[in-house]
Amino acid sequence: SKFEYVRQFETQDPCLPNTWIVIRLDGRNFHRFSTDHGFTKPNDERALHLMTRAAETVMNDFRDIVISYGQSDEFSFVLKKSTMLYSRRASKLMTHIVSQFSSSYVFHWAQHFPDQPLQYPPGFDGRVILYPSNKNLRDYLSWRQADCHINNLYNTCFWALVQQGGMTNTQAEERIRHTFSADKNEILFSEFGINYNNEPEMYKKGTVLVWKKVEETVTRTCRTAEDPVERPREVTKLRKKVVPLHTDIIGDVFWEEHPDILEEECF
Amino acid sequence: SKFEYVRQFETQDPCLPNTWIVIRLDGRNFHRFSTDHGFTKPNDERALHLMTRAAETVMNDFRDIVISYGQSDEFSFVLKKSTMLYSRRASKLMTHIVSQFSSSYVFHWAQHFPDQPLQYPPGFDGRVILYPSNKNLRDYLSWRQADCHINNLYNTCFWALVQQGGMTNTQAEERIRHTFSADKNEILFSEFGINYNNEPEMYKKGTVLVWKKVEETVTRTCRTAEDPVERPREVTKLRKKVVPLHTDIIGDVFWEEHPDILEEECF
Amino acid sequence: SKFEYVRQFETQDPCLPNTWIVIRLDGRNFHRFSTDHGFTKPNDERALHLMTRAAETVMNDFRDIVISYGQSDEFSFVLKKSTMLYSRRASKLMTHIVSQFSSSYVFHWAQHFPDQPLQYPPGFDGRVILYPSNKNLRDYLSWRQADCHINNLYNTCFWALVQQGGMTNTQAEERIRHTFSADKNEILFSEFGINYNNEPEMYKKGTVLVWKKVEETVTRTCRTAEDPVERPREVTKLRKKVVPLHTDIIGDVFWEEHPDILEEECF
Amino acid sequence: SKFEYVRQFETQDPCLPNTWIVIRLDGRNFHRFSTDHGFTKPNDERALHLMTRAAETVMNDFRDIVISYGQSDEFSFVLKKSTMLYSRRASKLMTHIVSQFSSSYVFHWAQHFPDQPLQYPPGFDGRVILYPSNKNLRDYLSWRQADCHINNLYNTCFWALVQQGGMTNTQAEERIRHTFSADKNEILFSEFGINYNNEPEMYKKGTVLVWKKVEETVTRTCRTAEDPVERPREVTKLRKKVVPLHTDIIGDVFWEEHPDILEEECF
Ligand SMILES: Nc1nc2c(ncn2[C@H]2C[C@H](O)[C@@H](COP(=O)(O)OP(=O)(O)OP(=O)(O)O)O2)c(=O)[nH]1
Ligand SMILES: Nc1nc2c(ncn2[C@H]2C[C@H](O)[C@@H](COP(=O)(O)OP(=O)(O)OP(=O)(O)O)O2)c(=O)[nH]1
Ligand SMILES: Nc1nc2c(ncn2[C@H]2C[C@H](O)[C@@H](COP(=O)(O)OP(=O)(O)OP(=O)(O)O)O2)c(=O)[nH]1
Ligand SMILES: Nc1nc2c(ncn2[C@H]2C[C@H](O)[C@@H](COP(=O)(O)OP(=O)(O)OP(=O)(O)O)O2)c(=O)[nH]1
Ligand SMILES: O=P(O)(O)OP(=O)(O)OP(=O)(O)O
Ligand SMILES: O=P(O)(O)OP(=O)(O)OP(=O)(O)O
Ligand SMILES: O=P(O)(O)OP(=O)(O)OP(=O)(O)O
Ligand SMILES: O=P(O)(O)OP(=O)(O)OP(=O)(O)O
Ligand SMILES: [Mg+2]
Ligand SMILES: [Mg+2]
Ligand SMILES: [Mg+2]
Ligand SMILES: [Mg+2]
Ligand SMILES: [Mg+2]
Ligand SMILES: [Mg+2]
Ligand SMILES: [Mg+2]
Ligand SMILES: [Mg+2]
Ligand SMILES: [Mg+2]
Ligand SMILES: [Mg+2]
Ligand SMILES: [Mg+2]
Ligand SMILES: [Mg+2]
Repeated sequence: SKFEYVRQFETQDPCLPNTWIVIRLDGRNFHRFSTDHGFTKPNDERALHLMTRAAETVMNDFRDIVISYGQSDEFSFVLKKSTMLYSRRASKLMTHIVSQFSSSYVFHWAQHFPDQPLQYPPGFDGRVILYPSNKNLRDYLSWRQADCHINNLYNTCFWALVQQGGMTNTQAEERIRHTFSADKNEILFSEFGINYNNEPEMYKKGTVLVWKKVEETVTRTCRTAEDPVERPREVTKLRKKVVPLHTDIIGDVFWEEHPDILEEECF
Repeated sequence: SKFEYVRQFETQDPCLPNTWIVIRLDGRNFHRFSTDHGFTKPNDERALHLMTRAAETVMNDFRDIVISYGQSDEFSFVLKKSTMLYSRRASKLMTHIVSQFSSSYVFHWAQHFPDQPLQYPPGFDGRVILYPSNKNLRDYLSWRQADCHINNLYNTCFWALVQQGGMTNTQAEERIRHTFSADKNEILFSEFGINYNNEPEMYKKGTVLVWKKVEETVTRTCRTAEDPVERPREVTKLRKKVVPLHTDIIGDVFWEEHPDILEEECF
Repeated sequence: SKFEYVRQFETQDPCLPNTWIVIRLDGRNFHRFSTDHGFTKPNDERALHLMTRAAETVMNDFRDIVISYGQSDEFSFVLKKSTMLYSRRASKLMTHIVSQFSSSYVFHWAQHFPDQPLQYPPGFDGRVILYPSNKNLRDYLSWRQADCHINNLYNTCFWALVQQGGMTNTQAEERIRHTFSADKNEILFSEFGINYNNEPEMYKKGTVLVWKKVEETVTRTCRTAEDPVERPREVTKLRKKVVPLHTDIIGDVFWEEHPDILEEECF
Repeated sequence: SKFEYVRQFETQDPCLPNTWIVIRLDGRNFHRFSTDHGFTKPNDERALHLMTRAAETVMNDFRDIVISYGQSDEFSFVLKKSTMLYSRRASKLMTHIVSQFSSSYVFHWAQHFPDQPLQYPPGFDGRVILYPSNKNLRDYLSWRQADCHINNLYNTCFWALVQQGGMTNTQAEERIRHTFSADKNEILFSEFGINYNNEPEMYKKGTVLVWKKVEETVTRTCRTAEDPVERPREVTKLRKKVVPLHTDIIGDVFWEEHPDILEEECF
């Protein structure tokens, strides 16, 4: 039609080739959302598992994601450097991932919050960030995990002072405003008998999603070398499956144990 | 932390000022999704109403949207030229809108499909397009509505041949491949007694969402000039409300009747 | 060859259609360049004419430029909204214009500075800016002309105090730091007998380059209706030619007298 | 002023950090320019040296350029991965480099073409390309050098057939259209006694510009440990200087001999 010229106003937005593509999403106004839905403080296990569930759906849908990392109301997805998914168009990548995450979050809500109806549909923003080198990518993931640690130590201490220590929010805030990590550990231990090291790994480290190859037994109708008749048989095949870890990704150990993630060297 | 330098790799992506910002989203693989969920052909009223419901949620959340238009598995949202929402950052705008739409679609599913459980979470892509002039913007909306008309006439004719005429899909496709609009109207009328003009407006024109100012009666505790005592009283106030229309937006009539949409002239 | 894949790393950078494209260039470190080449202060007629000469070359080369404006060490070129020059690729447009300007500046140097050899090749930066509306474009040009006026009034006053008033640079600067336009006019008039209004228009208003249709008499070998023999004849033809003006472009008069510049309404 | 809002329409265009920035420029319509200025065919030594002279000026001005490569009417400049020149703004980088190159080309013309006046100012386009890895960068440079070789062998053969073999352009073109490299070498050798290997390296390999540290003897007024009196003395200092090479940069040898160029590993 004579209106079709308007398509020319659309722009291409391809990501630079041979570069890691990271898509990070973050809950919109989750301060209010967590209050409205009675999230436990500072960490709500149900909420964190639901985030992980939604992220798994995303990975299963977009299989060029090689690793994901989540904490609080955010999740980061790393597409392999050589991905040609949606021709590397930034808009397509970020909207598809944010959309799938958002709809999955609502879809799986009831399973994780059986006693807490969803009051209204939550929103997430998304962005694309490019990292040229493996070091840059690892530093990005380290940045997010360090952020998780810092916030969690702060929040654990803050809510101990409020919930167990009987302080007001303002008092608790003032008490720890100018403290270092060591101080907060000390407060937790001496005043509340909490050894921060024993806190759940999921709270301290966030959630890492990686692919694992698993053997699966399926039934196929086929012949074998020994038996030339077609019949149903149990065969094992390799399938890749998303697994959640709550482990350190700042040090080298994780990367040495999972060499596949970074090794892909296209050019 | 020493990792924070990675933030420098994030880019700004502001939209050109004084320009219409259009965000169009479109269902991911809705060919399969509509089959999997038994959508009636060629139009499923429940599905279209659910799309509209999700779009209304988006408009109520992002009140700088001045008009929206939807058809099939897509919806377009028009932000006013002068909007400063998210500082006009393209990524923020498109991801927030796509995310809110996606989660709302799942959130309201059961209400529109009471007898059809949602099998899996659907996805939508999104994109930002900029239009400098009012004419460009109107041509964009005309393009989408003309597309709705062309597809709907085709599909109505196609499915009449299949469902009522007993043809196979291939036969129906061949029958109408080289026909013009007038021919399809004629087939519908002479072979199936269908007057295309009498088909539902929602199918022929899609759905336009605009703001309407409505008077609302609310109870407020207050004084009046006559009565200096504070007591509950009924007062009326103006509120803007999203209303769906199934009307032509290609011609001038609609725009003359809704002068506010385009008139905003910032500079 | 096996190396050709590197072309995929090049990006498209098309300018939004139906939008004014402005390219502004500005001399690199002309503070030093003007000193090194003994430019008279505050305005060097030779230098300004050379800038204009280089800009004319650019306009004659890129005929979709509808108007240009220059002052000091800068020049702005406005491409018509509908231009398809270099498919509207931003990099191509800005580099070609900056390059042509730079080489022309050196090429014509000797003609404008017969007694002053060029010491080293000067540089210019360039940028592309898009303006959606005519008002935005006029405001852009007004911004540059207002800048010319403000700087010129300041500089005229400053150098009068130094050159005629015997002040040091620091003294002159302090004297006028907190003054308004009216004050500077007053200083010029009462202390130096200079009526700022009588200063050269080129200094006060900068230089506007527009196209003018001119009749040209050329000799062609041809027949006429009256005389069927081929012989050399004088014929007149219309040709467009760049003309420099030193006139106000902030008010409406200029634009009413040159309606062609803005009227082009493609869509 | 009230017009200043128009600055908001300018965009930032920073290059991704930690990425090689390549700027390639190419002569505008040098087919005509070389004819108009009587360039010898297929290679004009004066023209190539002038290109190199202009590129040297650029490198001396922008000292974050670590290597440059030129052939025919083009030159590529490689900025180090960690450069913060002009905050990595793409427009600034490409326009400044193209501008300096263009004005230098004209500035040095007469020295290289003493008998051939410059008819009109030449133009060059420019573009920015980003390469994330060292391999990508080397492949880029290899691509340009391979292009030089292919074109030069073709042109040498073509002009031998025309200039020495007496063929028309069309005949020469037809003769070599479907030949491989080996065939062209053979034609040159058997028909014209030309051993392509003995052709000048500058024609076959193009021109590589790198930095070389040189010792320079300068006179400084200073004291020494032995002699406490200030007096003029000859001292040696290290200075980096641009040197042209006509050498292979596709193989590893060059890179092993110049480890500094790539080794910079910022992060
Ligand atoms: N109680 C509770 N709150 C949580 C949990 N996870 C996240 N939140 C809340 C705490 C923070 O207020 C909020 C995340 O902080 P953000 O910086 O993302 O801010 P917010 O989402 O409010 O605003 P935004 O739209 O992202 O700018 O989510 C949880 O497990 N329990
Ligand atoms: N039966 C039925 N199908 C519908 C209805 N609305 C949309 N659809 C289906 C028909 C089309 O196959 C599909 C929309 O076409 P698209 O061009 O968007 O393709 P699709 O979403 O399959 O792929 P995409 O991921 O957008 O490239 O949605 C409806 O009301 N009833
Ligand atoms: N004496 C004299 N100087 C002039 C004339 N026209 C321009 N200039 C000088 C005065 C300013 O120092 C300089 C223009 O100012 P800019 O803001 O463009 O600064 P500059 O070019 O030094 O630095 P830049 O590389 O543009 O950041 O050029 C003239 O006619 N006479
Ligand atoms: N005779 C002669 N010609 C040369 C020499 N170096 C370059 N040229 C000419 C040959 C080609 O026609 C032209 C370079 O080819 P390009 O592909 O860059 O085309 P051209 O510059 O004409 O057009 P463009 O504006 O770049 O699209 O320059 C030389 O040393 N001698
Ligand atoms: O924590 P982030 O990445 O969301 O950073 P921010 O400070 O919230 O900024 P924005 O979301 O506006 O980019
Ligand atoms: O109909 P659209 O706009 O989705 O156009 P398309 O042909 O599907 O293309 P794409 O979604 O890849 O931009
Ligand atoms: O006067 P301009 O436009 O050159 O503005 P600036 O302050 O010099 O900034 P820049 O040249 O760095 O954009
Ligand atoms: O040889 P190049 O790189 O100039 O490539 P081209 O085919 O001339 O294309 P363009 O200059 O239009 O990018
Ligand atoms: Mg944020
Ligand atoms: Mg948040
Ligand atoms: Mg957050
Ligand atoms: Mg599509
Ligand atoms: Mg679709
Ligand atoms: Mg669709
Ligand atoms: Mg500047
Ligand atoms: Mg300057
Ligand atoms: Mg200036
Ligand atoms: Mg080219
Ligand atoms: Mg060329
Ligand atoms: Mg070339």
